[in-house]
Amino acid sequence: MEGLLPELEVIRKDFPILERTLAGGMPLVYLDSANTSQKPQVVIDTMVDHLERHNANIARAMHQLGAESTEAFETARDKVAAFLGAPERDEVIFTKNASEALNLAATTLGLRGELQIGEGDEILITEMEHHSNIVPWQMLAERTGARLRWFGLTDDGRLDLSNVDELVNERTKVVSLTWVSNMLGTINPVADIARRAHSVGAIVMVDASQAAPQLPIDLAAMPVEERPDLLAFTGHKVVGPTGIGVLWGARAVLEALPPFLGGGEMIETVRMEGSTYAGIPHKFEAGTPPIVEAIGLGAAVEYLGHVGLDAVHLHEQTITAYALEGLQTVPGLTVLGPLDAASRGGAISFELEGVHPHDIAQVLDSRGVAVRAGHHCAKPAHARFGVQSSTRMSSYLYTTPGEIDALIEALHHTRSYFKVG
Amino acid sequence: MEGLLPELEVIRKDFPILERTLAGGMPLVYLDSANTSQKPQVVIDTMVDHLERHNANIARAMHQLGAESTEAFETARDKVAAFLGAPERDEVIFTKNASEALNLAATTLGLRGELQIGEGDEILITEMEHHSNIVPWQMLAERTGARLRWFGLTDDGRLDLSNVDELVNERTKVVSLTWVSNMLGTINPVADIARRAHSVGAIVMVDASQAAPQLPIDLAAMPVEERPDLLAFTGHKVVGPTGIGVLWGARAVLEALPPFLGGGEMIETVRMEGSTYAGIPHKFEAGTPPIVEAIGLGAAVEYLGHVGLDAVHLHEQTITAYALEGLQTVPGLTVLGPLDAASRGGAISFELEGVHPHDIAQVLDSRGVAVRAGHHCAKPAHARFGVQSSTRMSSYLYTTPGEIDALIEALHHTRSYFKVG
Repeated sequence: MEGLLPELEVIRKDFPILERTLAGGMPLVYLDSANTSQKPQVVIDTMVDHLERHNANIARAMHQLGAESTEAFETARDKVAAFLGAPERDEVIFTKNASEALNLAATTLGLRGELQIGEGDEILITEMEHHSNIVPWQMLAERTGARLRWFGLTDDGRLDLSNVDELVNERTKVVSLTWVSNMLGTINPVADIARRAHSVGAIVMVDASQAAPQLPIDLAAMPVEERPDLLAFTGHKVVGPTGIGVLWGARAVLEALPPFLGGGEMIETVRMEGSTYAGIPHKFEAGTPPIVEAIGLGAAVEYLGHVGLDAVHLHEQTITAYALEGLQTVPGLTVLGPLDAASRGGAISFELEGVHPHDIAQVLDSRGVAVRAGHHCAKPAHARFGVQSSTRMSSYLYTTPGEIDALIEALHHTRSYFKVG
Repeated sequence: MEGLLPELEVIRKDFPILERTLAGGMPLVYLDSANTSQKPQVVIDTMVDHLERHNANIARAMHQLGAESTEAFETARDKVAAFLGAPERDEVIFTKNASEALNLAATTLGLRGELQIGEGDEILITEMEHHSNIVPWQMLAERTGARLRWFGLTDDGRLDLSNVDELVNERTKVVSLTWVSNMLGTINPVADIARRAHSVGAIVMVDASQAAPQLPIDLAAMPVEERPDLLAFTGHKVVGPTGIGVLWGARAVLEALPPFLGGGEMIETVRMEGSTYAGIPHKFEAGTPPIVEAIGLGAAVEYLGHVGLDAVHLHEQTITAYALEGLQTVPGLTVLGPLDAASRGGAISFELEGVHPHDIAQVLDSRGVAVRAGHHCAKPAHARFGVQSSTRMSSYLYTTPGEIDALIEALHHTRSYFKVG
């Protein structure tokens, strides 16, 4: 099949969990990568080597282990900066996950400072956001009296831009949207929206949790009008560990935001009467950071870089096209979101007439096929399509056409099991 | 030497890094455990097993891997609850580190809710706090107009309680203090202060970052008047990984606090117009939590439990007494903090007349002895004693008297190297 990663079988061997069998000796067909990705041996080995040979706190420790640990941690920052094509390494802030990165932005935009949002201002999001890109902005609106607005969705699961002129206006202070929907799969026209938002002086934040794993990102190469001002992603979806996320921000924006959490490493000096704060990135990294996790993330993005994000993207599109084709053979199955693979990432949510998503997931699981069933932390997007929940398959660089075949076969089996159709 | 862990050599073999040699073939003498502790093989192996065989997102995933991962994560919560003697498992909130736990409390106490702190209210801390238990309260005071006050210190590095009646008054809404000082080593009379604070209706928060590694904690066994309402510690100081911390809180207090970060898992329902929130612990765990880190922490506290916290505490006191004795043989050396081992934990900061702490640390490092030099994230405590910085040795359950001998010998060498005295 053209477009698949040429070394697919070699890549699969890098991921030890893919050799697992499940109950009844079923081989694992892991189609839940939009939820969390599996980890290659090199990420695990890098973390183990750090813990067994180099573990020490960073920055604070001047001894040899401390120097080794600090260097490994800051080298991880360089690797993440390279992964994003970040204009400057110091613009990379380590957080615990994408949610913290989004909350960091939403919280500090509500605090005293030159970018402070207040009453009369507008915050613009979309109806297809993950809860982590909705709730922080609702909280910001509630705390500040600003108004939360959102782009609606078209019937085929794209952003409805028909009222963009009304939504993006001189009161709009921040626009936050996902690059790739975790539920609908839709790839959004981030550059266009950023251009519009910047024309009214708004800050643009992009949730790249689903984009970073599968789209090549080169921030420095983007025209500055189209480049987000803030971007979040999480380690565990890019073959890295849990416990680590990234906030990238343009230096000027990060410098204009007040600190988020207070503590060690984010200070310049502390007196009982008051404190002054360090520059970026440390201003936003209070306390001992996720050291071994950042180092694991560094190994993860380096691994993806070796495979090549262009190749990963092509693989995802190929698998997605093949899956969309296969899903159409299942009677009563409706895909939510765009139907052409070119407009979407590697997550496909669907309904199967007459069978509850939880039941589908359970039958699939009994055949070793791991998918997600539920609201996928995107309740409003489900509500928009008149459903409570859906079943979602999501692929990644290790997914094979044979695994898609297993899914489709299991879906046919599900229909006969529940005697629908 | 009586009081040492009987199985000390066996315990040392559990920690692979202790076999490392440094530049010049010097064996590692790790005396920086108050900064971060080393990790036993069982913690590393538990994390590797999870990543290689069970990795999946939790709660959201209904497939077999998801069930295994969720169970491992929630079992870790049980283990942490047992470690603290927490009255209820749901009172254990996973954060990314102790700083986040402290910030969670300080931030949410400033938000609308029944415990909201405002103008005219007082926040009480101490002059010996780590920056992570100072800066969040300064931020809270700044945001709310509340007044920040603090206990001063006596010349021997204890809390000055002479003005306790003035400091703890009907305006006091929260008292936050460290159980064991990371710089002075002092063990504070947390129960007495909690009793006083509760008598005026204040919330009591305890920073147990240095206490949790070395003192047996049994919250359920404490009289409720003496029990903290909130308690924070971090994984990486209790032989666990980085990227994971714990906020324990009494159910009533946690339920009264508004949410901190918004996102997935912390919601009950989300509509574009507004959201409602889950109960504890999920209300405070937005996004994908540090899954493998929590599981590693579970293995860590279980390991400490097997060794026995009473035995660890006795070991620390024995090593500390031996170290205090040895340090007194070094001319021109002054220990900061109490001089009796019974009043302190396993961290000893000191000055050496005529030699800068950074120079001491460097000479020690050249002999394989890893200590910390600087302000140890406790600038106000240093300022109280008229110094900018100090050198700190800190021991743990794997520390031997021979390592203390190596430190003392290296300090004598430092004096002759710099030709002081």
